[in-house]
Amino acid sequence: MSRIMVNELKKYINEKVVIQGFVHRIRRLKSISFIILRDRTGFVQCVADNNSFDISDLKLESVVEVNGEVKTGENVFNNFEVLIEKINIINSVKCELPIELNKEDLDINLETMLNNRVLSLRHQKINAIFKIQNIIVRSFREFLSKEGFTEIFTPKLVSEGAEGGTEVFKLKYFEKEAYLAQSPQFYKQMMVGAGFERVFEVAHVYRAEEHNTSRHLNEYVSMDFEMGFIEDEKDIMKMEEELLKIILKNVKNEGKSCLDVLKVNIPIIDKPIPTMKFNEAIELLKREYNKNDLEGDLDPEAEKLLGRYVKEKLDSDFLFLTHYPRKKRPMYTMPCGEEETHSFDLLFRGVEITTGGQRIHDYDNLIKNIVYKGLSPENYESYTEVFKYGMPKHGGLAIGLERITAQLLDLENIREATLITRDRTRLTP
Amino acid sequence: MSRIMVNELKKYINEKVVIQGFVHRIRRLKSISFIILRDRTGFVQCVADNNSFDISDLKLESVVEVNGEVKTGENVFNNFEVLIEKINIINSVKCELPIELNKEDLDINLETMLNNRVLSLRHQKINAIFKIQNIIVRSFREFLSKEGFTEIFTPKLVSEGAEGGTEVFKLKYFEKEAYLAQSPQFYKQMMVGAGFERVFEVAHVYRAEEHNTSRHLNEYVSMDFEMGFIEDEKDIMKMEEELLKIILKNVKNEGKSCLDVLKVNIPIIDKPIPTMKFNEAIELLKREYNKNDLEGDLDPEAEKLLGRYVKEKLDSDFLFLTHYPRKKRPMYTMPCGEEETHSFDLLFRGVEITTGGQRIHDYDNLIKNIVYKGLSPENYESYTEVFKYGMPKHGGLAIGLERITAQLLDLENIREATLITRDRTRLTP
Repeated sequence: MSRIMVNELKKYINEKVVIQGFVHRIRRLKSISFIILRDRTGFVQCVADNNSFDISDLKLESVVEVNGEVKTGENVFNNFEVLIEKINIINSVKCELPIELNKEDLDINLETMLNNRVLSLRHQKINAIFKIQNIIVRSFREFLSKEGFTEIFTPKLVSEGAEGGTEVFKLKYFEKEAYLAQSPQFYKQMMVGAGFERVFEVAHVYRAEEHNTSRHLNEYVSMDFEMGFIEDEKDIMKMEEELLKIILKNVKNEGKSCLDVLKVNIPIIDKPIPTMKFNEAIELLKREYNKNDLEGDLDPEAEKLLGRYVKEKLDSDFLFLTHYPRKKRPMYTMPCGEEETHSFDLLFRGVEITTGGQRIHDYDNLIKNIVYKGLSPENYESYTEVFKYGMPKHGGLAIGLERITAQLLDLENIREATLITRDRTRLTP
Repeated sequence: MSRIMVNELKKYINEKVVIQGFVHRIRRLKSISFIILRDRTGFVQCVADNNSFDISDLKLESVVEVNGEVKTGENVFNNFEVLIEKINIINSVKCELPIELNKEDLDINLETMLNNRVLSLRHQKINAIFKIQNIIVRSFREFLSKEGFTEIFTPKLVSEGAEGGTEVFKLKYFEKEAYLAQSPQFYKQMMVGAGFERVFEVAHVYRAEEHNTSRHLNEYVSMDFEMGFIEDEKDIMKMEEELLKIILKNVKNEGKSCLDVLKVNIPIIDKPIPTMKFNEAIELLKREYNKNDLEGDLDPEAEKLLGRYVKEKLDSDFLFLTHYPRKKRPMYTMPCGEEETHSFDLLFRGVEITTGGQRIHDYDNLIKNIVYKGLSPENYESYTEVFKYGMPKHGGLAIGLERITAQLLDLENIREATLITRDRTRLTP
């Protein structure tokens, strides 16, 4: 007999089945015992006759196979249960469990959760986060594929830092020095120019940032797209708006059971996302919140206040901030006049989840802008060269997967939306 | 007016359109000129009246926008053409093109192709490779998602080498030493134990191998899956067979136009993939091909001969080799008796494209096998620890994306199936 998944058992009332999974809970009464078995699809109550089975050795979280008959019977999980005819321990737990997994909430601090990651992930409320994350990624790829984008895999071992920043991991690549890519920026632009026109990539990127905050990771998943033959950054913003609509819709529909477990409501986008110029935002923060300490950039508090403002005034969870100052944007960003750029950030509930914009497509202007940013064009030759051979007007954006997951599910720390965390101090498990 | 893609133009006969793309070819006659425009969907012939347009400055591969009217008219690409009313150069090519892109074949050597990657990718026959690769990846994900697998993203910065090998890239991770992951092996097993049961990942892996062959890359895309609650490695092989059927079917159907360009036939799997024990293969190679120089492992020539053998004798492009010797398999491989293992390779047309098998799920046996392989269990604690807490029987496999693409499309060198190559000497572009 082959294994039946727990969520299929309702079709087998009064039939014999084999189920397999983890021992979630054990309750011994005088004549019978209840064993709650958990597989990837759910929970089921199994009933053992104490005269027939000695389950005194059975440990929580052990892996078991149960042969039994499905019978109607109300319990907290289903309106059926499995009468055990045989129970076989596939792999027994070898020692005390470091954390308790069968309470409604996993009542442990973040350190303990991450140190015992394989166990904490078994908890329904943790597990659900990654089921939702799956829907986000899949929706990202599906939407863009339908819009004519080609998926690309670009190297993470690179010879040039994308942003000219210093926060890169270095390594020896045989006789050469290499860096871990901070973003697929150069390569996705090159792939637009390589004739794919529209490309996306979902892959790890690396930031050797020294700070250890609740919203930064040193290795994270970046969902990038880049598209050619645009007019300006507004085409990118429009594409992102449609993309987000689909993501939210799919999470809401397909993720319903997970959202119920997590007790989270997903917003919908039913009107255009409001936009605000960066300079207007600075003025607004001064005027409305007396926030005067910003020096040409937003800080997390400023983003939070703007998030609150658009929620209260415009009933929106999202806000596009546009026309970022040229000084604050990387060298490939298309300037807009002397001071501003054709670029934007997207705030979601007061946290930046996207940076994007139009890029420079003209070779001479690109070289000029590299110099303007105080960088040396000769360090970027394998990137800039392709601009000599016909590059369409183009732009794109990046969405941090863990960031958007954490914001959507109202998680306090981005590490909660990361299967295995890599931060300032954490290199295991 | 918004841009119409070339493959949509047939719907606009006798209508005005705007098209955008690259100048693929120019042919000047006495009174008219032909400009072949290429966008990501195809080619179209555009006709310019020489009295109205001076296109003497127009360069091949420049990016242009054409306003014109679609008229019926037979030519090598379509049964319509576009009469140019306005042509606007969006971005002109700045210098001589290093390679010729508008011949049927891109007649250059591999070095030149990779050195001019953005340009060579514009060629229809190169571009088509990656459209096919897209179908392979998408089919992999779609099939496994339907089979209840969860997509995972696991760290590529790790503290332990998966196979105990020395061919790893090392880097400084703040105060610690880290490695680039050679495979997601440990983490995908951990995620099975974390309750996802079935997981897959499509991501880069890194091998610091010194040799520079036509079938190795130092950074490549590994398509991995791992599944719990199996009986043995045959469950993995069965899953792979179904997976490959879908991949081949989708490539054949959805990739038809690309396959026509590449002049490639895709095999179908219409009967079970033959299997052969590793030891039997060694014997067969001696008997049939007088190949006696194998010391407990296959070499590329041996794989080739086996590929030829199954093609001739069994009319199969595929061959599962099973029961690999314990000595040749990593420490996590489930032993089968004293000498063999529950593991397999899949050969496709005489090249290994998959390694897989059942893994050890019992903690004590795992520790014993680590010692058997001459390794130190204390180096693997963050991995082995999870086996104390209830690990189901499990197994999985990895398919090299570039490898399967190259084999399927009959490419001579794996670099041709890689957007941007990272090999022994190549770190740019």
